Amino acid sequence: MTMIGVLGGMGPLATVDFMGKVIQLTDAECDQQHLPMIVANLPQIPDRSHAILTGDESPLAHLLDGIDLLNRNAVGLIAIPCNSSHHWYAQMQARSPAPLLHIAETCVAAVPSGVRRVAVLATRGSLASRFYQHTLASRDIEPVEPDDAMQQRIDHCIADVKAGRLREASVALTAILAALADDGVRAAILGCTELPVAAQHAVPTSMTLIDSTLELARATVTYATERGWNRT
Amino acid sequence: MTMIGVLGGMGPLATVDFMGKVIQLTDAECDQQHLPMIVANLPQIPDRSHAILTGDESPLAHLLDGIDLLNRNAVGLIAIPCNSSHHWYAQMQARSPAPLLHIAETCVAAVPSGVRRVAVLATRGSLASRFYQHTLASRDIEPVEPDDAMQQRIDHCIADVKAGRLREASVALTAILAALADDGVRAAILGCTELPVAAQHAVPTSMTLIDSTLELARATVTYATERGWNRT
Repeated sequence: MTMIGVLGGMGPLATVDFMGKVIQLTDAECDQQHLPMIVANLPQIPDRSHAILTGDESPLAHLLDGIDLLNRNAVGLIAIPCNSSHHWYAQMQARSPAPLLHIAETCVAAVPSGVRRVAVLATRGSLASRFYQHTLASRDIEPVEPDDAMQQRIDHCIADVKAGRLREASVALTAILAALADDGVRAAILGCTELPVAAQHAVPTSMTLIDSTLELARATVTYATERGWNRT
Repeated sequence: MTMIGVLGGMGPLATVDFMGKVIQLTDAECDQQHLPMIVANLPQIPDRSHAILTGDESPLAHLLDGIDLLNRNAVGLIAIPCNSSHHWYAQMQARSPAPLLHIAETCVAAVPSGVRRVAVLATRGSLASRFYQHTLASRDIEPVEPDDAMQQRIDHCIADVKAGRLREASVALTAILAALADDGVRAAILGCTELPVAAQHAVPTSMTLIDSTLELARATVTYATERGWNRT
């Protein structure tokens, strides 16, 4: 049996959201048709955004420990439902016998054709790492980065989800999306996996939202079902 | 670092529900204050209720493989968010260096004092195994078992959750609880971990509902936080 490996806990509710999306996207009528997964939910991994911005307390050794743990357990693919940790994607992939999906690639592939400007809602660390900007630019899509006032609201929204304050997070995300719409933004990537958790209860918007958790889950399910990992 | 071990995938959405409840019950302001978990989501384990009822295709070897996997990964406690699999509790505990919580014990401990009759909503296999009836009787509480017509509705509700038909499952559970209330039942154990998933969208009832997933999560969080597993 080959399993999907999930390096999670960054944060924990985002990991749960990712697993739920994998399950809902899997065409299954009973337990046995679902995909086997091993999930390392490791919330003690040091803060990724902080490390990117300051250089302090790198999470890399912890991330590699998680990659090793999953590989010791016969995984055939690794998904990491945390955008900021993709700053260390190359090092993790170099360490891992199992291939790693790249969350930003799954999101940028989901931008509807014809859309030429996309807002990137992410941690300050992810934005400083610039992997979203580079991946979008490679497809000739202009990344729209929030100004500092908007980024502060995004920071608070992410922190609210990590602390379990889902109502506050939803209110915050609704306001963020309304402000973006006022600025003429028509599409946005929820490029931090806490944001789709906030979006579950946010007021619907007419903006095209690309959910990084959902796109990573979609790529994971496609990869695993093509290889028949849910067939005993 | 000591981790919580979760033997899951029975079914997958119930595992996600359990993890979400562990996270929401943990007093944490940031990722690093949450509890580390390793989750073996193994949906290919053969149907537990069917095996109890017919003696065919025992899941025991698969369950023990899961117990072994978790113990190889340094877990300090194992929780199994599947009631029916507790038919094999003694064999799993005998195999496992890490202690296993018993889901029925966590539920029966949560019956409010003064309540002397409790309906047990569970798979036919769990009811045939009689671990709920024995655990309730040891506290002088009378178990109320559904008649066959009611049990058929419970079977369908459980199958709907496993197939991702959450709307149908919620409608079914609402009707089940209304029928129990008409029969004078005042408290019920949701003794199959698919039922709390259905309950998320069911119409609220005045009946006392004891959610086996929530009670298992509560016992898990208490055990792990008392031992400081969320302190790095």
